Amino acid sequence: MGLSEQTLIERYFHDIGAARDDVILGVGDDAAVLQPAPGYELVATTDTLVAGVHFPDDCPPAALGYRALAVNLSDLAAMGAAPAWALLALTLPEAEEGWLREFAAALGALARQHGVTLVGGNTTRGPLSITVQLLGSVPRGRALRRSGAQVGDALFVSGTPGDAAGGLAVLQGQLAVAAPWGEQLRERFLRPTPRLALGAALRDWASACIDVSDGLLGDAAKLAAASGVGLCIEWQAVPVSAALGMALAPEPARQLALTGGDDYELCFAVPPARLAPLQAALPPTRWGYTRIGTLEAQSGARIVRDGTVMDFSHSGYQHFR
Amino acid sequence: MGLSEQTLIERYFHDIGAARDDVILGVGDDAAVLQPAPGYELVATTDTLVAGVHFPDDCPPAALGYRALAVNLSDLAAMGAAPAWALLALTLPEAEEGWLREFAAALGALARQHGVTLVGGNTTRGPLSITVQLLGSVPRGRALRRSGAQVGDALFVSGTPGDAAGGLAVLQGQLAVAAPWGEQLRERFLRPTPRLALGAALRDWASACIDVSDGLLGDAAKLAAASGVGLCIEWQAVPVSAALGMALAPEPARQLALTGGDDYELCFAVPPARLAPLQAALPPTRWGYTRIGTLEAQSGARIVRDGTVMDFSHSGYQHFR
Repeated sequence: MGLSEQTLIERYFHDIGAARDDVILGVGDDAAVLQPAPGYELVATTDTLVAGVHFPDDCPPAALGYRALAVNLSDLAAMGAAPAWALLALTLPEAEEGWLREFAAALGALARQHGVTLVGGNTTRGPLSITVQLLGSVPRGRALRRSGAQVGDALFVSGTPGDAAGGLAVLQGQLAVAAPWGEQLRERFLRPTPRLALGAALRDWASACIDVSDGLLGDAAKLAAASGVGLCIEWQAVPVSAALGMALAPEPARQLALTGGDDYELCFAVPPARLAPLQAALPPTRWGYTRIGTLEAQSGARIVRDGTVMDFSHSGYQHFR
Repeated sequence: MGLSEQTLIERYFHDIGAARDDVILGVGDDAAVLQPAPGYELVATTDTLVAGVHFPDDCPPAALGYRALAVNLSDLAAMGAAPAWALLALTLPEAEEGWLREFAAALGALARQHGVTLVGGNTTRGPLSITVQLLGSVPRGRALRRSGAQVGDALFVSGTPGDAAGGLAVLQGQLAVAAPWGEQLRERFLRPTPRLALGAALRDWASACIDVSDGLLGDAAKLAAASGVGLCIEWQAVPVSAALGMALAPEPARQLALTGGDDYELCFAVPPARLAPLQAALPPTRWGYTRIGTLEAQSGARIVRDGTVMDFSHSGYQHFR
């Protein structure tokens, strides 16, 4: 690449994000040195975005910078953790300064918003690929897990799943919808909102939690399987946004809400005894979450519509064209 | 890919490496949960290997699994840190089970050797690329940095730099040498030895330390620049292995030792007052390190041969063909 790795790192990635007292040594040495807080556990995750796989090749660099961090923030949200430090491994075909400036600015802005400092990383020549490693903390013993849900717990989802998949379809020209709705969906794909405040608040209420990234139904089934239980989702209860409702007929809209990917919402279980206090402490309309079902003894994931189990495996999955 | 991400992760990457009490939650949730030790700082690094850039396309998977972790271990060695937890972001064109088995076995074996547990990661479809994030610890305030060297400090390097670059040339058919020597060089490229014990021991003696990955001369110059000093390397003092000496004439062999990449050795500075106790505590022949020069007030990096500064910028860099 035209600029050396060191020049690139110094110019665009030096100490972007929040200023934190617990960063003892940030970007520029062989490794970062960080001070974990006493009484807390460390929470660590990594996620990769590959051009042509996770995003269209012509995706704006600002959206990539945002998204590469947001998907990792969402993992920490699902653990009930507070993010702190990020490392970036950026593989680029060539070092275009305009691209780098926009990418770094967007990543840095989201990092500052959530109190995250970029403390290290490397840049490499090769096919465009972005891997972020994110470290955070959770009070000792308080991390939310996928396991922990029990039969009878209520199942919830935050936000309006399916919007991101609809937005990707809009971006790829597979779905047409009037401007304000199309723009809203597109934004949900390009700039998903990591639910960090909700995840942290759920430490007091949820028995299990998962990040919805591969589709609500599949990820809810992972939570149930990890908890050793099954689940039943009420078809009518699955929230569909106004924008998705404008873009698709009710049937395919709800299918997309159940199976579309890239939502980065939280799916979580709450024991019956905690339902009333949860809804008092975190009013659902203000916090943006919806009950969609219940965990059951019978293993597997079922969708019930008008009292009948749907044969869902043969519907959906081909939403456009 | 043929196998789902979850199946892949469960089959090949579940809890590989060492068993550690401080892993509260490993592979399989949205993030790992880890317990940092009181009195220690956290040390974090990440490095990426890209096919066709960092290794030949036909590199054996076992060598890649080893190397992807080794280059990160080397970063921690340069900080004087002890490694603990790794995350793996693996991008693969297709999921070949034989490839994955060999890759995971080699990564796991090196991880166990150094007490590292694989605690998380993800697999993605795309051009072959491997990013490892490695976390470790160092007693509070004791991390070795690139900065910290002073004028008059002695400069050392571990091992025999240039061997890995020679080995890559052997692998690529650019350098021919009799079997035992060629094999030795090839091994130095494919399976570099992270100098973790030396790095940890150097916390008591070194004023600055860097991982030699881009070539000894360039990396030594980075250490000097980070310390705000210059450096002078004695041409005759730069160690050349017997194998490299068999493969190349003395002149190009030493040029390669100074400029070849992928060594993953340590370059470090030691104040004059600590030289005698260092060499008593860590005998150089047993620990495998060599004094190559001295840090000076004049900025920049010089190589002196027979009392004269060499015009090194116009020699070397084209070692083969």
